[in-house]
Amino acid sequence: MDAEIITIGDEILIGQVIDTNSAWIAQKLNDIGINLVQISSISDNTNNIIVALDHAIERADVVIITGGLGPTKDDITKETLCTYFETELQLNDEALKSVENYFESKGLKTTKLNRDQALLPACCKPLQNNFGTAQGMWFEKNGKVFVSIPGVPYEMKFIMEDSVIPMLSTKFQTNTILHKTIMTTGIGESYIAEKLSELESNLPENIKLAYLPKPGIVRLRLSGTGSDKKALETSLINYVQEIESVISKYVYGYDDEKLEKVIGRLLKDKNETVSTAESCTGGYIAHLITSIAGSSNYYKGSAVVYSNEIKEKVLEINGKTLKNHGAVSEETVIEMAESVRDQFQTTYSIACSGIAGPDGGSDEKPVGTVWTAIATYNSTITKKFLFENNRERNIERTAIACLNLLRKSIIDS
Amino acid sequence: MDAEIITIGDEILIGQVIDTNSAWIAQKLNDIGINLVQISSISDNTNNIIVALDHAIERADVVIITGGLGPTKDDITKETLCTYFETELQLNDEALKSVENYFESKGLKTTKLNRDQALLPACCKPLQNNFGTAQGMWFEKNGKVFVSIPGVPYEMKFIMEDSVIPMLSTKFQTNTILHKTIMTTGIGESYIAEKLSELESNLPENIKLAYLPKPGIVRLRLSGTGSDKKALETSLINYVQEIESVISKYVYGYDDEKLEKVIGRLLKDKNETVSTAESCTGGYIAHLITSIAGSSNYYKGSAVVYSNEIKEKVLEINGKTLKNHGAVSEETVIEMAESVRDQFQTTYSIACSGIAGPDGGSDEKPVGTVWTAIATYNSTITKKFLFENNRERNIERTAIACLNLLRKSIIDS
Repeated sequence: MDAEIITIGDEILIGQVIDTNSAWIAQKLNDIGINLVQISSISDNTNNIIVALDHAIERADVVIITGGLGPTKDDITKETLCTYFETELQLNDEALKSVENYFESKGLKTTKLNRDQALLPACCKPLQNNFGTAQGMWFEKNGKVFVSIPGVPYEMKFIMEDSVIPMLSTKFQTNTILHKTIMTTGIGESYIAEKLSELESNLPENIKLAYLPKPGIVRLRLSGTGSDKKALETSLINYVQEIESVISKYVYGYDDEKLEKVIGRLLKDKNETVSTAESCTGGYIAHLITSIAGSSNYYKGSAVVYSNEIKEKVLEINGKTLKNHGAVSEETVIEMAESVRDQFQTTYSIACSGIAGPDGGSDEKPVGTVWTAIATYNSTITKKFLFENNRERNIERTAIACLNLLRKSIIDS
Repeated sequence: MDAEIITIGDEILIGQVIDTNSAWIAQKLNDIGINLVQISSISDNTNNIIVALDHAIERADVVIITGGLGPTKDDITKETLCTYFETELQLNDEALKSVENYFESKGLKTTKLNRDQALLPACCKPLQNNFGTAQGMWFEKNGKVFVSIPGVPYEMKFIMEDSVIPMLSTKFQTNTILHKTIMTTGIGESYIAEKLSELESNLPENIKLAYLPKPGIVRLRLSGTGSDKKALETSLINYVQEIESVISKYVYGYDDEKLEKVIGRLLKDKNETVSTAESCTGGYIAHLITSIAGSSNYYKGSAVVYSNEIKEKVLEINGKTLKNHGAVSEETVIEMAESVRDQFQTTYSIACSGIAGPDGGSDEKPVGTVWTAIATYNSTITKKFLFENNRERNIERTAIACLNLLRKSIIDS
């Protein structure tokens, strides 16, 4: 069973908006065994939309159309679908009630523009939207399904989970697609590939291995297809174990689990806690840790000490240490880590100080120089990194390196 | 002049990777007057790639292909381009030198897999990659241009800026496309549309207005096309002023400028400083502020006080305040804001405390309840918000609300 996504909106084509919807939809379709064959982003233009629909339906059984359903004049998806399905807009009572309830619940008045949101193509089945005024629409033609939903992410997600996925599961009986992902850090893509070369050559036809690098992390994804879900699952698990036996020291988790999630799990299991003292990452490590629901069980807080004055005052870093060794030094991060651990009374602490860039580098300490430290109850380890001249990436890579050092410390302790 | 992007890689189609490259490329093409008509994401499959190339070249003069150039076996773009252009892979001396230099500069050995990266289709012009081993490739056929570049974002960006954009500018003389964007916060899309309805109806044919909402923010984008760049620019500026006169109190900036950047500019101009005391946002406000290069000039740091114990200890919040009113209360955020302002000795401070979710809500204070405060040297203002039951969005919306309150305080002071 194949599907295709068509995203409609000039905002994606001029680069003002990044299409995050498609990845989310792709995962949901995969979960019910529907294989995504293409994503096409096109503009709010009647002719383009119709051509895209024609091409899509040649390749796919299900076409998911997102965007262009807003109340404003630049949105033309509904009118275009009327043309495509040779029908007309009609006031849908169910949809009108839904729109009016939406505004009433917020204590707001319903405008004329909002009421127009209840005009839908006559041949569609409306799909309820609890988070906005644009209803979803389900069409069928020659045994194929077309779904049109809003592009606003949380509205799209609600309609997909509440209506589209259950309805597709009911309508189609599908083949199984399974993925297993191994998360690694601390080794580059080509070095892993060398180590896995022989194993990769011996993979069966129905199982593929892909390497997905991003700053500080390489994900290894095994994808398998088959009719027997249980056999496929077993086969994939065996290959995961085989791969892991070759590169175990770089593996930190599975299936897109984030490092901050792994750390949360480890700390909760041991009933231990952590705090952070951040300079160059400016609160990003704290943000990653607290992005996990339930992190208040093991995370106490962070001292984001961006200026030297605050390093001295809040973390009581010795003025002489800063003067003699500089803020970006092993001596400073050791004091930072131990101070925040003691002040916040946690089992572990993370500290980092570096030159994120673009300015502030020197010959001795170029942009990208970062010192990190992990304090445990009786010892403090440090590690120096030399990243690149890219502020965003240096912040990201520092955070990942720190979280990985913490992970190892927890496991080793 | 029209272009199309083809991104190759199963990782996008199974939803494991979000395509951030296309938005970036779209902006760069727009800057040189090249209009993007479609983005297609397809899988690592020879036949699919060839069909996509055939379709793309019907619509566009320039086709940018990203991805599938890694050293590993799942990457087949180079071989497929050989088939498409009826040519063969050939060792390219220039490319080999580039690959060897890359590894030498990192003190690493060049593997066989890496050396194979210097095998390129015979008819292409190689485009140097300073950040990786996959070279870019430039092809021409029947007056149309095909560019193949890696999918790794920083490698892609380097090759685009260093080679592709300059080469396209030289080769094509293009029409002008201009965009102006007005950034608003504190008002919903349909309410703005009502206010701008008449103005929108009177826009000339060559100028379009689009509404782009995201949590807490609505962007209004005016897009114009024309042959006379200067006249178009003037016309767009006039419409921006007209729109702004109608909705001035919601406008915080222009052209995708982030709130944290606006705040940085305002603080630098006044030679003032800010600090933050964060509970529910867990360091995210600090991260946003410090994501701006040069923020160390006006930002001193944050106390991320995730637990009550740390609120008392680090920010000296009165135990009675926490006991009588709770951590999520007006009284607590006032103490947090004033304490961090005094401890960090800054002109302003931001404080927030709320229930991000999914747990921790009560009838009196449901998930999504957030108290915020801004302290200035002689006064503290507060504001309560009631967001939704979505942890990620509550953190995002709280941060935006806090930054906007700070912006207003700086302007009003």
